[in-house]
Amino acid sequence: MDLGSFIGVISGISLIISAIILGGDAHNFFNTPGIMIVLGGTVAATLLTFQFKDVIAAFKAAYFVFTQEKQDPNRMIATMIRLCNISRQKGIIELGKVKTQSPFLKKACGFISDSADESVMRSSLRTEIESLKMRHFVVQDVFRKMGVYSPAFGMLGTLIGLVQMLSQMQDPSSIGPAMAVALLTTFYGSLLSTVFFLPVAGKLKARTVMQVIDLEIIFEGAISILENNNPILVYERLSSFIPPRVRKPLSSMRKG
Amino acid sequence: MDLGSFIGVISGISLIISAIILGGDAHNFFNTPGIMIVLGGTVAATLLTFQFKDVIAAFKAAYFVFTQEKQDPNRMIATMIRLCNISRQKGIIELGKVKTQSPFLKKACGFISDSADESVMRSSLRTEIESLKMRHFVVQDVFRKMGVYSPAFGMLGTLIGLVQMLSQMQDPSSIGPAMAVALLTTFYGSLLSTVFFLPVAGKLKARTVMQVIDLEIIFEGAISILENNNPILVYERLSSFIPPRVRKPLSSMRKG
Amino acid sequence: MDLGSFIGVISGISLIISAIILGGDAHNFFNTPGIMIVLGGTVAATLLTFQFKDVIAAFKAAYFVFTQEKQDPNRMIATMIRLCNISRQKGIIELGKVKTQSPFLKKACGFISDSADESVMRSSLRTEIESLKMRHFVVQDVFRKMGVYSPAFGMLGTLIGLVQMLSQMQDPSSIGPAMAVALLTTFYGSLLSTVFFLPVAGKLKARTVMQVIDLEIIFEGAISILENNNPILVYERLSSFIPPRVRKPLSSMRKG
Amino acid sequence: MDLGSFIGVISGISLIISAIILGGDAHNFFNTPGIMIVLGGTVAATLLTFQFKDVIAAFKAAYFVFTQEKQDPNRMIATMIRLCNISRQKGIIELGKVKTQSPFLKKACGFISDSADESVMRSSLRTEIESLKMRHFVVQDVFRKMGVYSPAFGMLGTLIGLVQMLSQMQDPSSIGPAMAVALLTTFYGSLLSTVFFLPVAGKLKARTVMQVIDLEIIFEGAISILENNNPILVYERLSSFIPPRVRKPLSSMRKG
Amino acid sequence: MDLGSFIGVISGISLIISAIILGGDAHNFFNTPGIMIVLGGTVAATLLTFQFKDVIAAFKAAYFVFTQEKQDPNRMIATMIRLCNISRQKGIIELGKVKTQSPFLKKACGFISDSADESVMRSSLRTEIESLKMRHFVVQDVFRKMGVYSPAFGMLGTLIGLVQMLSQMQDPSSIGPAMAVALLTTFYGSLLSTVFFLPVAGKLKARTVMQVIDLEIIFEGAISILENNNPILVYERLSSFIPPRVRKPLSSMRKG
Repeated sequence: MDLGSFIGVISGISLIISAIILGGDAHNFFNTPGIMIVLGGTVAATLLTFQFKDVIAAFKAAYFVFTQEKQDPNRMIATMIRLCNISRQKGIIELGKVKTQSPFLKKACGFISDSADESVMRSSLRTEIESLKMRHFVVQDVFRKMGVYSPAFGMLGTLIGLVQMLSQMQDPSSIGPAMAVALLTTFYGSLLSTVFFLPVAGKLKARTVMQVIDLEIIFEGAISILENNNPILVYERLSSFIPPRVRKPLSSMRKG
Repeated sequence: MDLGSFIGVISGISLIISAIILGGDAHNFFNTPGIMIVLGGTVAATLLTFQFKDVIAAFKAAYFVFTQEKQDPNRMIATMIRLCNISRQKGIIELGKVKTQSPFLKKACGFISDSADESVMRSSLRTEIESLKMRHFVVQDVFRKMGVYSPAFGMLGTLIGLVQMLSQMQDPSSIGPAMAVALLTTFYGSLLSTVFFLPVAGKLKARTVMQVIDLEIIFEGAISILENNNPILVYERLSSFIPPRVRKPLSSMRKG
Repeated sequence: MDLGSFIGVISGISLIISAIILGGDAHNFFNTPGIMIVLGGTVAATLLTFQFKDVIAAFKAAYFVFTQEKQDPNRMIATMIRLCNISRQKGIIELGKVKTQSPFLKKACGFISDSADESVMRSSLRTEIESLKMRHFVVQDVFRKMGVYSPAFGMLGTLIGLVQMLSQMQDPSSIGPAMAVALLTTFYGSLLSTVFFLPVAGKLKARTVMQVIDLEIIFEGAISILENNNPILVYERLSSFIPPRVRKPLSSMRKG
Repeated sequence: MDLGSFIGVISGISLIISAIILGGDAHNFFNTPGIMIVLGGTVAATLLTFQFKDVIAAFKAAYFVFTQEKQDPNRMIATMIRLCNISRQKGIIELGKVKTQSPFLKKACGFISDSADESVMRSSLRTEIESLKMRHFVVQDVFRKMGVYSPAFGMLGTLIGLVQMLSQMQDPSSIGPAMAVALLTTFYGSLLSTVFFLPVAGKLKARTVMQVIDLEIIFEGAISILENNNPILVYERLSSFIPPRVRKPLSSMRKG
Repeated sequence: MDLGSFIGVISGISLIISAIILGGDAHNFFNTPGIMIVLGGTVAATLLTFQFKDVIAAFKAAYFVFTQEKQDPNRMIATMIRLCNISRQKGIIELGKVKTQSPFLKKACGFISDSADESVMRSSLRTEIESLKMRHFVVQDVFRKMGVYSPAFGMLGTLIGLVQMLSQMQDPSSIGPAMAVALLTTFYGSLLSTVFFLPVAGKLKARTVMQVIDLEIIFEGAISILENNNPILVYERLSSFIPPRVRKPLSSMRKG
């Protein structure tokens, strides 16, 4: 998570908390049965909708998206140009020996060093990209659905509270506090959804877009190398993926 | 249903129920006319929207999705590679004798053993995949629509209750309990939708995605076999459908 | 409408009505000005949005969708195979004399008997299918929009009722019944939408899907006949449109 | 606007108005500050979202859509067949002299008389159609956004009224009328949206669909003429755009 | 921002403000904790969803969209025709020396002067356009999400206020003002969303459409120049992007 966002989030949440404290007793906002209903309901509905391992994967992805550094796509372009130079100087067989952490780049290099058919490489790598998009979509969907389930269970909790309150209305003076407690679950559900689930789903979607751009750069670059294009042309093709303002010139990449 | 999800769902629902019981008499939450309105309305609107047999099919599909094991796509890849080896060692005619439970795989093998035109096989199998997607979409749609109808009838029930209460407001002390009863149908409708209909629709959609991946693997594999590709290339093409982390190496598949 | 659905709808509606009657006077639920507002408003907004003849066409389509039998796509496949046999035995000219109620099939046969260019036939028939989809979309849209307008006018009616009640609040004891009357229009609007407009829109959409499958079968079949494929291949191509379980074997179709 | 729709709209609105008058004083429904908030807010938000000239264009389009006659697509087909005959009898150069009000048809004729490359004509005319769709989309969007903004400002007006009422609650007997006034803005906003903005947006969308069909007929017809097809084939291709029931036979068109 | 819109926005907002002032004390509408909750929450959720630099970029884009002049697409067509003339008179090498502020046009000219392969130029420029659309989508999305978050935090603020009010309901006479304060955050959230965030998102989307048209004109023009088309044909192809009414004739462009 970048520093700017971190400061912004902290100060935003401080504002809310201080506004609550200014208004009176903060312990009015804590109600165990309400928390049980909202959390229990959201977890149950989510585990009914998804597989246990998908939910675990989603929370892992949420953890990484806030801790990992965002990658600069310029670096991937530099890598592809380096690979292009290697393939032209030492031959395409050399690309089969490239060491990389990305299974996608490894697969692309394998295809090139086997001088595979372009259409086979194209369809196989395209399938990889589409599969990755689909898997990431499931991960985002876990949080998007939780963002729908948690206010729904908040409302259900409020209905439960109202029904209990209205059925046992012996003492008029207890109506106020009972209603306050009933409203709390709606508060919990909406808060969880707006402050946590929906932003995380949005963040994961943005991260997927960045990763897909990286894969597209590898995809286009690998095809360029297979077609034996020169590094200048490869740079021209790949730099189109990056906004003009942050694009690095080819000269700075060759050194990299 | 996997064990993790099962435990999660059970504990989530226990949380909600214990929260209700903590709050007082649980029998306040049971109201026969309310249940009649929500269930009757949802069933009637669903049967107006869909055919009887589609609704039956949807509930059957919901039953299977929670009881059947999820298939590992690695197994389908292993099957396709075995078929590839058979076709190369014993000839493509042999594929016509393959025994399988999947009508789709059977059809694909039939096309190969007849050495059909690639474009004919492609368009016919593609039509099968699209038809399956469309049929599954109807099944998911039954639950999605029920997830829309049940809170709508919940709200209608509450309106009915409010109108009855407000028209006969002789005794002020009866307002509370009457309103509690009126709110119950909204509670029933939302609960049914959030805890049952929507999660089932989500689960069915996820299952369709898995089945379509299986069919895509057969589709791509059959074309590879028809093009007489070698098993290594078939593996490279088909493994793209599986996330890198759970991908099994080709060597382990050959034994299978 | 199939028998199962009919019984389901009747019993569902009986449940709702009996629940209302159980709760007290049913004549509380009848209010002429409220019905005028909801019906008048929905009709006016719908006629502003659509042309008079489109609205008439929509109601006609709604009538047919509940009275006409759903066609078995197997029959259309049998028809196409019969045409294929005719064209191979008596020559394609013979197809120009085929008698059929479907203008689409007639047009397709005309193209074949004129031995038209495949691309011309393809684009013309494709345009027919797209035009039919578009026309049916308008018909569904009439009901979908009515399903949006009717609760909106229900809410407007309730606002009118509340404004009238609140402006003339001399007698506190009249508040309850006045509010009951105000809520009735919301009830009417939501009931109409949930019980009639939305299910009909869904039913019409499902029917369109069935008709488009029929047209696609004719489309694919006509191209197969023009390409002079044999009946077995035509059957293989066309049967892909039907779920494996209800697919009839080729042998049973030849007799047909 | 067709007569049927006109009568329907008038009678629908009469129903609403008579229902209001039946309920009591109609002047309770008139509140100047409320109208100022809803109209002022909707206008301001719309002019922030769109350019002044786009908003003007949208209202002009709304005026025309209710006053202009809807064109029969059969006429456009007849025109294209006449042009086809001209080009076959007098040569394609003659088409350059055709006089027409439609700039699209003029452009198409220009391309044919210049015997332009088919791909150039195709891409240029396709761009025209897409540009028209995009421009019309903006015009519809003005009304769709107004249909969103006006109930939002209605709700804001009600909030303003409630805050004012609740802050100055000295006299309990004034609560009723003050609340009635507060609710009026919600009434104005929803009424404007449901009775005017949304139906107009729907009408404009339907009109766009009709115009695009006209352009598609010119598009397909021009390509047919360029390919030197005979009038019968041109008729077969173009008539696919029209529903079979209202399709006129070729013979009646030749005279036209 | 055009003058018409400016006047409209100012007068619209004046209407709202004067309506508020007419209703009583305007200082009832100012509440510091409420503003803290809505602004703090919206900022925090937005910075959780997006990166700090994306949020900054979005506000910069919002500033420019209201201050910069909207470009006339006729000018871009004139530019492309001038470039076409240059390339035909002085040779395509000359295009490499063209000075322009648009990196996209610069890149297109570079491809032409290098007499690049058409398919390479096409895919590279297409990638640029798609990347720009994606980047602009993120910028619009910042405002669209803020338009969702701000009413959500408004509602959360109201829930906080209601819970505080209901828990401490000793003095019945304080209920009114406390409820007024609680409603204020809903007012703030909806106002911000309807008057600022959503219109800005709409404006940015419209601006993107205009810029994409400019890029499409360059794209199509560059391909025309590479194919060595004459200026008349280039004009015919490019003018299709502009509505017929504002299209300038070729003669007026040549002078430009």
